[in-house]
Order: sequence, then structure tokens, then C-alpha cells
Amino acid sequence: MKNIGILGFGVVGSGVAEVIHMNGDKIAKRVGEEIRVKRILDLRDFPDSLFADLITHDAEEFFGDPDISIVVETIGGARIAYEYTKRALSLGKSVVTSNKELVATHGVELMEIAAQNDCSYMFEAAVGGGIPIIRPLHKCLAANKIMRIAGIVNGTTNYILTNMRDSGLSYEDALKQAQKMGYAEQDPTADVEGIDAQRKLSILSTIALDGAYVSPNCIHTEGISKITLNDIIFAESINCSVKLLARFDHPFNGKPACFVAPHFVSHNAIISGVDGVFNAIMVEGNALGESMFYGQGAGKLATASAVVGDIIDSALHRHKDAHITKWYNSDEKVENYEDIKISAVVRSNDIDSVKKAFDDYQTEDVAENAIIVKDIAHKDIDKIIGSLSGASYIHYME
Amino acid sequence: MKNIGILGFGVVGSGVAEVIHMNGDKIAKRVGEEIRVKRILDLRDFPDSLFADLITHDAEEFFGDPDISIVVETIGGARIAYEYTKRALSLGKSVVTSNKELVATHGVELMEIAAQNDCSYMFEAAVGGGIPIIRPLHKCLAANKIMRIAGIVNGTTNYILTNMRDSGLSYEDALKQAQKMGYAEQDPTADVEGIDAQRKLSILSTIALDGAYVSPNCIHTEGISKITLNDIIFAESINCSVKLLARFDHPFNGKPACFVAPHFVSHNAIISGVDGVFNAIMVEGNALGESMFYGQGAGKLATASAVVGDIIDSALHRHKDAHITKWYNSDEKVENYEDIKISAVVRSNDIDSVKKAFDDYQTEDVAENAIIVKDIAHKDIDKIIGSLSGASYIHYME
Repeated sequence: MKNIGILGFGVVGSGVAEVIHMNGDKIAKRVGEEIRVKRILDLRDFPDSLFADLITHDAEEFFGDPDISIVVETIGGARIAYEYTKRALSLGKSVVTSNKELVATHGVELMEIAAQNDCSYMFEAAVGGGIPIIRPLHKCLAANKIMRIAGIVNGTTNYILTNMRDSGLSYEDALKQAQKMGYAEQDPTADVEGIDAQRKLSILSTIALDGAYVSPNCIHTEGISKITLNDIIFAESINCSVKLLARFDHPFNGKPACFVAPHFVSHNAIISGVDGVFNAIMVEGNALGESMFYGQGAGKLATASAVVGDIIDSALHRHKDAHITKWYNSDEKVENYEDIKISAVVRSNDIDSVKKAFDDYQTEDVAENAIIVKDIAHKDIDKIIGSLSGASYIHYME
Repeated sequence: MKNIGILGFGVVGSGVAEVIHMNGDKIAKRVGEEIRVKRILDLRDFPDSLFADLITHDAEEFFGDPDISIVVETIGGARIAYEYTKRALSLGKSVVTSNKELVATHGVELMEIAAQNDCSYMFEAAVGGGIPIIRPLHKCLAANKIMRIAGIVNGTTNYILTNMRDSGLSYEDALKQAQKMGYAEQDPTADVEGIDAQRKLSILSTIALDGAYVSPNCIHTEGISKITLNDIIFAESINCSVKLLARFDHPFNGKPACFVAPHFVSHNAIISGVDGVFNAIMVEGNALGESMFYGQGAGKLATASAVVGDIIDSALHRHKDAHITKWYNSDEKVENYEDIKISAVVRSNDIDSVKKAFDDYQTEDVAENAIIVKDIAHKDIDKIIGSLSGASYIHYME
């Protein structure tokens, strides 16, 4: 019997208990012994829960239990979750989490503590919810240099954008509806301003760079709160979908470039068809070429399924199989946002002036009042757009 | 330094040498030591290859080399590859392969030999080429009961079907063009009659059933050679794509059902947008819900990238991390083809007779001369269609 403890009995934490209960037979068969939830630490009581008896409010009791060898951290945030994760790892207990904020902020330190104490810090569920992406990127693509990642990694914003298009709603109304459906928080800032996507991109970029840490602070981030229904209608008219993309580009002779921004994505790209709360992450390796991982990026059981997958792996290979062996603070800096080269759709009622202004760049006509400009640095497009009245741009992906 | 040997220097075998050469730095950093190709066994000489000096024709020399701890089997087929794989495993050398025929035919025995000799038999590249699918299905979805798999797992047939639609070609002309492009063999039987897909489904189904072996012989298989341009034009008219699908369905209270057949796939399903030589595998877990894995299902470097990923894993975790610990012959039988319940598009110029004949089933009108029939066993639809003149059906997936 392998005993686990759960820190925080919210949506994902209770989902973990539920998945272990629901699929216990299969899990025991795989691990070779039963996985049992022994204790759950939460400030609240859950008298109606199947797991009510396991709840404790006493952190000393929780951490002092020598039976518990694997700790699930589903508190969220980077304060108490940070303290508790350090405490568990320092005791040699492996920690499995879905907490992207904590991994993105303190991953380097936490993986170091895990290594020192011969245990693992695992976080398959931190990006893409239940979608397998951390392990495939790290293990299956181990023979590749990662050239490019483009991910729809936030379900809330993708739901809002899809609903604006399908129901003809304004951004404000679509946000309200997402809140009503439980897809958006009452304070939606972290989702709609791209901060959640920024954290996930920090994790993906660090893995793509084999552990060379890319802090969220280095990732220029723009959310969807300025996207209008008109933008979306226009995008569809030129066969594009509007998607919030987390992007990592690593040219052969250049620095890695990371940013989060809304994009017009051509309908030719399979990722453009990823709608609603679904997530998808496109990864390009120099040997593999393009691949894509698609599924539910959030949700109680979906996210819990990834957490429990990590628990099983940790139970089977405690000392050997931490899937990210080491993150480290690196001197290799990512490209400055200003210098990152992009493609963009530029719109203006005075398209002739626009064409003239972008004369030195490769362009393509896409509509009466719009062109695509290719391979241009942010600083250059910002300068040119600033010099034109009534012109604007949105990132473009083919 | 970790020495490997390659059996068979064809497309994938030479791709493996190339990927190790191309990304050697990154691979060495991951493994902690250099991975070196020491010997390549092939009957032919390759005087122009960068690796010409490593070629040997002498199997004794190859297998007798104590330095070689990992063997790559890229011979293909289930004859000499079978003998050599047994020989390598019996010597305690881990074997990594892309050979779906061998895994699907002799996987149970070969994994048993590997276990007895404390080494691994790994085959991430056997399904979906470079797409990560074996490891995600086995490891990341370990906490799930696998309810459903629907895969486009053969690039040749998907290229032919896509090209028929896009260029308005007959099946015969599209096949000829695929042969000209190198996407189809001169004898295309294994691809177009679904045998390649059948082998891959055997592997996926066995993993989905946690090692309970599903032989290719148990998988009813129909290829695409009877699909006409008219079928494809009609499918598009009702918003469907024609796809050859490998399907695994495991209802809660029933036997697993496996078959390969052409399907009309609704454009609402994201898998319907997977075109050309690309592959995609949809997997549904009881906790995760739907996920999809997409990418290049074949190709030299793509497939080699998955082989080298397994080499790295094997080098790091030789004794512990064989990702399929055990396959076994199981008494649990898959559902008889006749009893598998499906949905289908039924076409006839006398649609009124068709509707009457399927009166006991749930149906849906989709065109003047077609209906969708749902939840009907093969034996029942075959019987009813047989009793009607001029009616036909093709499987349907929503």
C-alpha cells in the first residue's frame, strides 16, 4: 500500500481523490499495490464528501505522518503552497502538482530541493490540464531540438473568443457568460490578460531549453481584453480564427523568443479549429517536424487524471524518473520583445499609405483594407504603425 | 559512452544514425554521456554514406560486440527481424524498434524475453511514426480507463483520400500519384487494405487494455480500395471527410471492440481536418475525456526521432523504465465483429424503403438519398442492407 496526502481539497484536489477511488483497481494493477489517500489538509470541513473522514486541519499531523510518501499539492498560488511544497520535499516526500504559478515562479529551487532529498517534483497537470504534454515534450521529443511551440493553453480565453464568434457577442458579454458558466473567475484578470498563459509558456519554454529557466518576467504578454467582435468578424472574412497563443520560437542562429499575444490564425493551421474550452499545443522538433497535443485543458477529472498519472509514475520510479531532472538559472537570455520577428495582419482604411510604409518588407494582400506583413521586428512594426493614423495590427500565424 | 548497433540501414535505420549525428550534443547532455553508433548490420554497402565505415555484413561480429548495449531494429517484417530481436534480447541488449508488424505479431513473446533478461523492448515509433502516443497512452493516461480510440494511423491512405478530394482523382489515379511521390509502395496492399492500420490498432488496443494482447487476427479490417470519388464528393456534401479509422471502443459493460474501416467523419470532429500524410489519434479516457495526438506518421527523421527518444530513455533507465512492462495472452476476448454496434451513413435512391427497413433504429436525415443509422450491430445492418436493392453503407463518426 502506497499512502498519499492531498494539500487543498478544492476542484482538482477532490478530483484526485475521486479518480483514485473510481479507477483504483486499474491503478493498483499498474503500481503493483494499492494507492490510498490517507490524509487531506484543508482549512475547511467537507461533511458531505466521501472523503470527509480524511480531512485534517493540522499541518503538523499531515507532515508528521511517516506513511505518506507522495504529497499532492492542489492549493494553488505561490505562498502557502510554496511553503508546504518545500516542507514536503525537504522530508523526502515526492510532490505532484497542477500549480503552474508555483512551478513557473519557484521551479528551479523546488527541483533542486527534490534532487537533494532524492524525491521528485512532478507537474504534468500544470500545462494543458489533462493533456499529456510535459512528458511527451521532455521524453518522447528528447532527440529533437525544439524549434517552435504555439499553444492555446488557456481555456477561458478560448471559450470567450469562440463564443464571441459563434454567438456574435461583445467581449464584455462573452466574459459575463463565461463567468456564469463557471469558465471564468469573478476576477478574470489572470486569464484574460494572459498571465495564466504566460506561466504555462514559462514552463514549456524551460523544458524546450532542457531546463534553462525562462522566467515569466521575461515573457512579454498581451491578453484578449482589447479584442472586439469586429476583429473576430474581420478575421473570419480572411479565413482566420482569433486565438490567444503562447509562442516559443528558437531559430537556428538566434536566441529563443517567447511571447503571449492574440493572433489571427489561418484556417489552414489545424490549431485554428481548436474551439471552446479545449486546449492544443503545437510543437515542432528539428527531427520530428510538427506535432500537436489536443484535449481538455482544465476541468476537475481531466486535470486530476494527469496528477494521478504522475502519482503512479512517482510510485513506480521514485528515485529515477523525475521527468524533469533539473532546472537551472541560465545566462542564456531570451530575445528582447522588441527584436522578435513576427508576421502580422495590418488593417487601415488608407491601405495605400500602409503598403507604402511597409515597402521594405514582404507583404501579401488579404483584403481591401488589410495586408499581411512578414518577418518584421516588433520595434519596427510598432514604429511604422505609430507613424500612420488609423492603422493597427494583430499577430498572424499561418 | 553508450554504444548502439543498428540492424538494417534503410530509411528509418539511416535516419536514426542521422538524428544521433545531428543532435548529438543535446542527446549527450540529456543522457550524461555520448550515444555512439558503433556498428550497422546490413547486407548492402553504403559507400557514399557518412556511416559507411560502420557497416558490417557479419551478424556474429555485430552480436558478439560486448560494447553494444542497445540495438535498433529497423529491418522490418517478422522473419529475420524476429530472429535478430530474440537474439539481442537474449543477450541482455535492449531493443528499440519502429517495426509494427513484429511488435503486433510477437510482442508478447519478445517482451517476456526482455523481462527475463533484464532489458527493454521499446517501440514508440511503431505507431504514429514520430508522434508521441505509446508513452502518453501508457504513462500519462495511466490513471484512466481507456474508453475509446479512433486513429488515422496510415499516412498513405490518408494522402490518397485527401488527394482524391482536393484534385478530383479516382482511387486508381490517386494511388498512382502516391506511388510516384514515394508515399505508397509498388505493392500497396498492406497500406490500402488496412493491414498496416490493423497492426497499429493491435498495439494501441493491447496498451489500452493494460497488456491484455489483442492479436491483429482478431481485428476485422477493411481498406480504402473500394472508396470512389463519388463517395468522397457525397461525404463532403453532408459535411464529412472520408477517413480510414482504426477504432477501439470499450463500453462500461461490454467487451472491447476493435476494427479498421473507412468512415464518414463529421467536420465537427477535429480529426476530420487531419489531411495528407499526417496522422492523428484520438484517445478518450474515463477521467481525461477526449485528447488527440497529431503529427507526421511516417518519414525518415520523424520516425527516427521517436526511435532515438526510446534509445535515450533506455540509456537512462535500462532496468526500470521499459514503458510496457508486460503483455500477456488474455482470455478476455474482443467483441465479435458481427456484434459490434456502430453508426453508419446509408445511401439509396429508394430512401423511403431504407427508412422503413431501419424503422426500429434511431435515424437521422442527412440528404435526399441518405440517412444516418445509429447504434446498430454489424450483423443487423448487413442483413437489412442485403435485403434492399441498391442500398449501401459506410461507417460514420460524429
